[in-house]
Amino acid sequence: MTIDLDLARSLFADLHEIGFDGTGITRASYDVGENRAHALLERTALGLGLEVRTDWAGNMFITLPGRDRTLPVVMTGSHVDSVPLGGNFDGAAGVLAGLATLSGWLREGYQPERDVTVMVIRAEESAWFPVSYIGSKSAFGLLEPASLDVCQRGSGRSLREHMQESGAAPETLGQAEVLRADAIRCFVELHIEQGPVLIGTDTVVGVVSGICGSLRYRTVTIDGEYAHSGATPRAFRRDAVVAMSGFIARLQEHWLAIEEEGGEMTLTFGVCHTDAQQADFSTIAGRVSLSIDVRSRDTALLQRMDGHIQAARLAAEQAHGVRVTLGPITGSQPAHTDQALQDALLQAAAEQGVSATTMPSGAGHDSAIFSNQGVPTAMLFVRNANGSHNPDEAMEEADFAAAAEVLAAVLRQQSA
Amino acid sequence: MTIDLDLARSLFADLHEIGFDGTGITRASYDVGENRAHALLERTALGLGLEVRTDWAGNMFITLPGRDRTLPVVMTGSHVDSVPLGGNFDGAAGVLAGLATLSGWLREGYQPERDVTVMVIRAEESAWFPVSYIGSKSAFGLLEPASLDVCQRGSGRSLREHMQESGAAPETLGQAEVLRADAIRCFVELHIEQGPVLIGTDTVVGVVSGICGSLRYRTVTIDGEYAHSGATPRAFRRDAVVAMSGFIARLQEHWLAIEEEGGEMTLTFGVCHTDAQQADFSTIAGRVSLSIDVRSRDTALLQRMDGHIQAARLAAEQAHGVRVTLGPITGSQPAHTDQALQDALLQAAAEQGVSATTMPSGAGHDSAIFSNQGVPTAMLFVRNANGSHNPDEAMEEADFAAAAEVLAAVLRQQSA
Repeated sequence: MTIDLDLARSLFADLHEIGFDGTGITRASYDVGENRAHALLERTALGLGLEVRTDWAGNMFITLPGRDRTLPVVMTGSHVDSVPLGGNFDGAAGVLAGLATLSGWLREGYQPERDVTVMVIRAEESAWFPVSYIGSKSAFGLLEPASLDVCQRGSGRSLREHMQESGAAPETLGQAEVLRADAIRCFVELHIEQGPVLIGTDTVVGVVSGICGSLRYRTVTIDGEYAHSGATPRAFRRDAVVAMSGFIARLQEHWLAIEEEGGEMTLTFGVCHTDAQQADFSTIAGRVSLSIDVRSRDTALLQRMDGHIQAARLAAEQAHGVRVTLGPITGSQPAHTDQALQDALLQAAAEQGVSATTMPSGAGHDSAIFSNQGVPTAMLFVRNANGSHNPDEAMEEADFAAAAEVLAAVLRQQSA
Repeated sequence: MTIDLDLARSLFADLHEIGFDGTGITRASYDVGENRAHALLERTALGLGLEVRTDWAGNMFITLPGRDRTLPVVMTGSHVDSVPLGGNFDGAAGVLAGLATLSGWLREGYQPERDVTVMVIRAEESAWFPVSYIGSKSAFGLLEPASLDVCQRGSGRSLREHMQESGAAPETLGQAEVLRADAIRCFVELHIEQGPVLIGTDTVVGVVSGICGSLRYRTVTIDGEYAHSGATPRAFRRDAVVAMSGFIARLQEHWLAIEEEGGEMTLTFGVCHTDAQQADFSTIAGRVSLSIDVRSRDTALLQRMDGHIQAARLAAEQAHGVRVTLGPITGSQPAHTDQALQDALLQAAAEQGVSATTMPSGAGHDSAIFSNQGVPTAMLFVRNANGSHNPDEAMEEADFAAAAEVLAAVLRQQSA
């Protein structure tokens, strides 16, 4: 075995202790949980004799120096914050796989040609601050100054204050040194799979073919008319719930048709509700709210679905006499993963006898920032039961070890 | 003009003053608002020289004695309680039409052959106590003893306490004298229409062809599985919201088919919501709750729709891998209205040049209790804009007067 699995095992236990909230794991971004996790990893890295550096935003870079320190570096890593009541593996697995790799190399006396850096990224989970990828954006100098004023969901205090309390220097935004894509040879992130595909197909690792972009209408409202359920015949109704059902059913049909053509996307209406004050079982609903989340690696497909959403809105308005207000559109661009790195990961898995498949990442990741900055980027998913963002995340240690070995092989190849 | 419209106008103003809450009308059952309305009507009736009697439950009977007091009586009336933030006409219009009729007859010196009684019924609105038709059920000795222990939504105190504070005698339930159907020649209730049909068809009155029964599942839950919206492909989903949409769409299609066959019913999903704690725009909904309300005059049709609901449940479970729990079924039996009384109302309207149509009552009314007790019963709807149970009820005085004249003609014919 190349990697230092004992170290990873010990660090998973320490991170569990730091984050355990009685039910799940809570390591809030730029707060006690994340700060304690960073401190643990800093102590561990220094203890191993690795170089440790932090940037203006508190991202930590743990480096095994290469023989030629002028060459573009090989990077891996992920984040160690969690959602509230989350699990122990989302993010942390990628950081510990990187550290276990460097520790393993030190143990065998291997020195790479290039620097190899494990990046411990701040604030990946937007559950705390309503900004995505704060850490990786900051690392590249991409954080908007206005974002420093957003407040944490838990404390109600600003990102600026939380950064300061965590030892970062938000006042240097725009002046501090940041990462440059041309100084990075590649970024490879290991992460638990957050869906059921690897479990469902009995496969240990997934090589990510691309990171989905998204198209979101978080607060769609359908306004009809409240009226007596018994006294209002069908022809007189403007029923918001029935209009919503037709709207959802129509978009589901488009999804099905797109899949039949071979298109890859997801479509989710995660929230829907009538008005808590006005809705009643004996009253036709005059208003319903819902969310729409579309994800795909294919920008054209996202645009096509947006067209279907607009058409479904008009159809609902005409059929049911309602008014559909889509509200603000938000979203993110898809990110490519590097084909050569994908091939390298698949080949390493094959050589080590680890079952592997290729799959898109429906969830967003810091890797998308690296990729969109022009860094050759790849992701390796590890089989994990019960999804993520909940206390039931269940990655088997053997699967972690196998995936970390695949990662280590590619980092070695890239840094040799 | 036969009826005493000035009296009705004056009483509508007094009832408005009693009930005005700053926004709408609130006259709570067995509480200050209803009690003050009953006191107003008692004073008014006594001032006119009419007989006034109350029963054990506080229902008030205002009677113009006939020449032969041994004959079955002719009855009219309705209720004077309202929902919270309701309107001034729902219920009250029927009571004031009756009083205006008796006052008009006194003015012209007309004495009927039979007693004619305006019943001021207690607690029709189940918004306050979660029991339907407390007053009319009590009048016939049909109130369950356990109902005395239910609590008022406003005060949190029991129906028993509220009855006692309103001068009624709940301790005599089961022993007090009650109405007997064979002592009642007929019951004719005037009421505002609570839907848009008369406004929509430019018709002043509606003769009710029957009172709908209902079939209700107030708390249906659909349980699927929470999962990451981006990371979970379609085939792995158990999406509660999508299952609900299919369920609703399927039942809507059955309603359409039933209407195309000439069946009369309504179908309403007034409440639906994902879980406020767990639902999120980026998470597939693992649970959704909804209500189903079916109404029809046709018992067989209610049963047929129940069959469709069961089938739609199974179809949703099979198609989406969810579990649909319908929960408790509640409802009420449809009530017939008397054909001869319907014909009499239509004929009186025609003779007076008042536009009339025949229509079902989708809402329930105290008339259903009279009908199901074997009393020949009819209802006359008055055109009213904006539905009921809201501050915007809008019955034109001219429409009220025309409808009250139609009512008066039939009461006169029945009591002659």
